Amino acid sequence: MTDLYPFSTTIKVRFNETDAQGHVNFAQYLNYFDVGLIEYLRSVGFSYQRMLDENMDMLYVDSHASYKAPAHFDDILRIHCRTGKIGNSSVRFDFQIFNETKDRLTANGEITVMIADRKTFQKKHVPDHFRQALEEEIK
Amino acid sequence: MTDLYPFSTTIKVRFNETDAQGHVNFAQYLNYFDVGLIEYLRSVGFSYQRMLDENMDMLYVDSHASYKAPAHFDDILRIHCRTGKIGNSSVRFDFQIFNETKDRLTANGEITVMIADRKTFQKKHVPDHFRQALEEEIK
Amino acid sequence: MTDLYPFSTTIKVRFNETDAQGHVNFAQYLNYFDVGLIEYLRSVGFSYQRMLDENMDMLYVDSHASYKAPAHFDDILRIHCRTGKIGNSSVRFDFQIFNETKDRLTANGEITVMIADRKTFQKKHVPDHFRQALEEEIK
Amino acid sequence: MTDLYPFSTTIKVRFNETDAQGHVNFAQYLNYFDVGLIEYLRSVGFSYQRMLDENMDMLYVDSHASYKAPAHFDDILRIHCRTGKIGNSSVRFDFQIFNETKDRLTANGEITVMIADRKTFQKKHVPDHFRQALEEEIK
Repeated sequence: MTDLYPFSTTIKVRFNETDAQGHVNFAQYLNYFDVGLIEYLRSVGFSYQRMLDENMDMLYVDSHASYKAPAHFDDILRIHCRTGKIGNSSVRFDFQIFNETKDRLTANGEITVMIADRKTFQKKHVPDHFRQALEEEIK
Repeated sequence: MTDLYPFSTTIKVRFNETDAQGHVNFAQYLNYFDVGLIEYLRSVGFSYQRMLDENMDMLYVDSHASYKAPAHFDDILRIHCRTGKIGNSSVRFDFQIFNETKDRLTANGEITVMIADRKTFQKKHVPDHFRQALEEEIK
Repeated sequence: MTDLYPFSTTIKVRFNETDAQGHVNFAQYLNYFDVGLIEYLRSVGFSYQRMLDENMDMLYVDSHASYKAPAHFDDILRIHCRTGKIGNSSVRFDFQIFNETKDRLTANGEITVMIADRKTFQKKHVPDHFRQALEEEIK
Repeated sequence: MTDLYPFSTTIKVRFNETDAQGHVNFAQYLNYFDVGLIEYLRSVGFSYQRMLDENMDMLYVDSHASYKAPAHFDDILRIHCRTGKIGNSSVRFDFQIFNETKDRLTANGEITVMIADRKTFQKKHVPDHFRQALEEEIK
């Protein structure tokens, strides 16, 4: 059994997130990861609004998803997130989606973001206090 | 048989636009209408970029869709659009979606937009040259 | 001030639901209405699964949305729903979306569904016990 | 300069595919890849309908996207696709998205699908004639 990351947030699958195969569309999982990321960052003190207020934005440079088992309409999904790796100007976040309704892992994956200036979208260093907040969390 | 509006643009249904009922999700039709609107406005000389360049934006204030027959993955849809009614600061556009693959009307509806200042999103009068371009088209 | 319908369910705006105008895309509201409808039906005893189990499905025949004020990323939206009108084989549901973060109504609208056989998608009468559950609720 | 794969199909970015950062939402690229995949398979003789008719379906088991440069509303995107690797019961397809409007690569990535029975969704071997059609193409 995979160890699940401590942080998680929960969503319920909406009908428009399914497709004609009868389950959740594969692209939708990246949106779920993103919901998890936003709540995870809020939990370490960085709401997206605070990031913007501090002239920090995130540009998504890489995403990966591995689909383990289908999820269906009305399923309860728990999106787990942790910090995977902190670089000079990028951070990789790791995700697991656990299907509570079906009691199984439904997907996992990663998103790598580049920290950027809010207005110019130019790359910038991961600010120290943001790095510390993330490092604190993964200790 | 409904008369179809002269202007149309064509799209093909994507898999992610379907849902677990096996056909196109009902909310998706508004996106199709929007594709039709953008191409229709371009056809009367107003690309969205030109509108922005002239400090004009559109805020959507009302939408209506009537679903006549389901559309499925890979169906070819022809989105017809015309100007319905021009007010002081709003314009109603009318839509029909004809399913070429199934040879039947699949939906119709309307979108009403308010003309707004690009930066402040404040309501403004429909600019004269925009009004004329639309009136010319519906003569 | 508009009276808000008693039933409501709450969601938080996701980033992928916004568009380049910086607020929630107009088509997205139909998905929000749909979330409200599903939870409302569950609250009167009809989960979507129960409907399917009883060979009942819903085909969406009409939708209308009126946009009152923009909603933005991370806003908390309360989706209110009630039964509007029960016909022979169709039901109209009414919706209000109240933006808790901005303390204002953001949209309202209606969805009319036709009750259909789950397998054939043929129209059928609104089953008596479903009608009673809805009528009970609007008394 | 990256060599672009011979096969491509073209789409135009829709407004609902952008987000509040002003460019195309990162999850949307998987839908674009999927459009490319469907058209690519059609070009080698396997429309999705033919696959279903032959009791073959595809379950998506892995996706990866690398974002090179943002794409914006109304940009013309050319989605390139090729067969990457054919396994016993899975196939990896490779993608490149070239932004014609901006004259640059906007993203690349891969999708791995498992060939499955259409009804049971159970894994099956890549059928010989499907394998041959794909191998023919990558020679």
